[in-house]
Amino acid sequence: MVDIATRVWNHKWKIDPIVRSLIDTDFYKLLMCQSVFRNKPDTHVTFSLINRSKAIRLADIIDEGELREQLDHIRSLSLSRGESTWMRGNTFYGKRQMFSPQFMDWFEDLRLPAYHLEKKDGQYELTFEGKWPEVMLWEIPALSVLMELRSRAVLRDMGRFELQVLYARGMTKLWEKVEQLRDISDLRLADFGTRRRHSFLWQDWCVQAMTEGLGARFAGTSNCLIAKNRDLEAIGTNAHELPMVYAALAKDDEALRQSPYDVLADWHEEHDGNLRIILPDTFGTKGFLDGAPDWLAGWTGIRVDSGDPATGAETAINWWTSRGEDPRQKLVIFSDGLDVDKIISLQQQFAGRCRVSFGWGTMLTNDFKGLVADDGLAPFSLVCKAVAANGQPTVKLSDNPNKAMGPAEEITRYKRVFGVGEQDRVEVVV
Amino acid sequence: MVDIATRVWNHKWKIDPIVRSLIDTDFYKLLMCQSVFRNKPDTHVTFSLINRSKAIRLADIIDEGELREQLDHIRSLSLSRGESTWMRGNTFYGKRQMFSPQFMDWFEDLRLPAYHLEKKDGQYELTFEGKWPEVMLWEIPALSVLMELRSRAVLRDMGRFELQVLYARGMTKLWEKVEQLRDISDLRLADFGTRRRHSFLWQDWCVQAMTEGLGARFAGTSNCLIAKNRDLEAIGTNAHELPMVYAALAKDDEALRQSPYDVLADWHEEHDGNLRIILPDTFGTKGFLDGAPDWLAGWTGIRVDSGDPATGAETAINWWTSRGEDPRQKLVIFSDGLDVDKIISLQQQFAGRCRVSFGWGTMLTNDFKGLVADDGLAPFSLVCKAVAANGQPTVKLSDNPNKAMGPAEEITRYKRVFGVGEQDRVEVVV
Repeated sequence: MVDIATRVWNHKWKIDPIVRSLIDTDFYKLLMCQSVFRNKPDTHVTFSLINRSKAIRLADIIDEGELREQLDHIRSLSLSRGESTWMRGNTFYGKRQMFSPQFMDWFEDLRLPAYHLEKKDGQYELTFEGKWPEVMLWEIPALSVLMELRSRAVLRDMGRFELQVLYARGMTKLWEKVEQLRDISDLRLADFGTRRRHSFLWQDWCVQAMTEGLGARFAGTSNCLIAKNRDLEAIGTNAHELPMVYAALAKDDEALRQSPYDVLADWHEEHDGNLRIILPDTFGTKGFLDGAPDWLAGWTGIRVDSGDPATGAETAINWWTSRGEDPRQKLVIFSDGLDVDKIISLQQQFAGRCRVSFGWGTMLTNDFKGLVADDGLAPFSLVCKAVAANGQPTVKLSDNPNKAMGPAEEITRYKRVFGVGEQDRVEVVV
Repeated sequence: MVDIATRVWNHKWKIDPIVRSLIDTDFYKLLMCQSVFRNKPDTHVTFSLINRSKAIRLADIIDEGELREQLDHIRSLSLSRGESTWMRGNTFYGKRQMFSPQFMDWFEDLRLPAYHLEKKDGQYELTFEGKWPEVMLWEIPALSVLMELRSRAVLRDMGRFELQVLYARGMTKLWEKVEQLRDISDLRLADFGTRRRHSFLWQDWCVQAMTEGLGARFAGTSNCLIAKNRDLEAIGTNAHELPMVYAALAKDDEALRQSPYDVLADWHEEHDGNLRIILPDTFGTKGFLDGAPDWLAGWTGIRVDSGDPATGAETAINWWTSRGEDPRQKLVIFSDGLDVDKIISLQQQFAGRCRVSFGWGTMLTNDFKGLVADDGLAPFSLVCKAVAANGQPTVKLSDNPNKAMGPAEEITRYKRVFGVGEQDRVEVVV
């Protein structure tokens, strides 16, 4: 029987929206947003889309009108009553009222601010300017929209069964990964794939497949909407955005050197336990750990997000040992460029030496490599970053010079201030 | 949105029926039924289920109560108005009114006769006795029911995503076959897979995938219900059943020798063109062709259904040549144990030397080999055959002694009468 009501409902959409909810975003964005709302509400920031994969000419692939429709639709969204109830009432990481009433009151009234869109050299220049707690919430939906519009453009001319077989192949591919991973009894893995997902429905399918296939090994998802709808844990802590903006706001070199620790001091006040995760690589992991105050060594763990992951974990283990901490009690979260083989080898290498966890992104929610002509659905490296704060450019160094961003003279200054020497280059695929 | 009406509708089914229509059967059964209705309406026959794959203990796998429910449901079916309209009004093989008003009047009133079911040695003994035109229509639904109940039994304990991935893998497997086949520009291939299908919905999917993937290379389906619903050609001509029963009715050896030609004489009167297809292997192809009257050489083609297919085609080509016919104008239909590699090699071997066509069965509609534990969905060889007519046992020799059936002494007699010498054994998989 034809479900007429659903058809009519679908026809009501002028567009088929990619993002249908303000909480279709990463959990850590909401945590960071609350921290910014409390500590730096009036900072003026600029976020900008950056496509590191220049060969993918997004402005040639994606229609500007469609892109504007999707972005305009996101600007029309506001928090629904059920979403607000979930954020106010749910237990996150075992804690009630993670989000304060003040923050929730503000968030319930929020609409996302204006965007600025231009085409240049086959790419879209998409920027967002305004108050930090508002502008920062554009990052994930902007990425989701561009990723999914690209998928839709590639799929547009495929037949009905060709499409069905494409998804059948994608499902088979993911399930083969699940079958490899479920042999690892002490695995702990979460979905971090919102920003680079093939599509919303596909991410939702992947999360459900992981839930059934991995059981307790699957810790949850970074996507709040999916976590809410599927009754899963929302996963995430904090990101480079905080130290990048704090650093840009620093008045001099000494304040700059201190800024990453200021971020975590603010965080320390607000959170405990599993939310006390150090992200040490924004301006180079080694310098960060060498200069870290002792109270940071008491935190729960470290997230390794650039450079060679095994090296990053060894560095963390050595640092904890040097500070008199027992690494076996500490959590190492790997979240950069993961796929099954790397997950398995890292697990084998570090299980027993520390607590190991994985935040699996692109190759979980967007692995259609080799499945269409010219590999038109191969994942690529799109990011949306804070590029300026109160008129000052931001800088990110990371543990991989291929991921560095910011003006050249500022990069040189940051390298000097944070004592970053030679770094190994690692190819950035996704 | 939940489609409440569909849910309620589904709840109304005491069982989830496998066969929901009397025309969910092979087209040639209806053609033969009409021929039998005209020429031998009062013949009393027995059809019996035979599982050639003894290792598959169907009575251990399939619940008897469920089997009876499915068979009882089939007995409750009658031709719907739309089905009758399709049979009366549609053009089959370019001809209108393929089914006579007399036959249609009878068919509209038909309900399938009683069945007899017993368990023995881990197998079901399922027999149907009565008037030939009624009993013969049990063959395909009985096979479909047993095949699908076996699939359902194997799938019963699988999880929701495990199931989805199973079907994703099945789809991928079939689509890879489609991709191989669509490189052959002059391919002509039809679905003959109703009797051994994994399930009705799966056959329907396979047919749709072939339609999209192969375009004009896909000639149609033997399944009347799917042909009607999907607006495809219904494909088929005649089967071993006719010569087997005619032979059993023969009064002496001379009448026995003549009986396969009597079948085709009756058929000749009723049909022309694409429906004049010789099925020569019932009692050995060579003897049949050597003794065939000249008018048979004028028929459109031959179906090769046992023995080595290339040998069968060569035999046919030589026979046409010896009778002064041009084999390049003749159609050879391969329909035994086909899969992609064999289709491709036969096409390469015979394209240009005769017109080539394929009736692809089990490995089209039931290839789940290797996809579940213990290969529990691997196809197996189940048939439902006329075993007696007016009290006399039937015999089938075919061009493969592993496919022979009937009492030993009768097989010996038939071999003598039809001059069948040594035959090569070919393993029967499906």
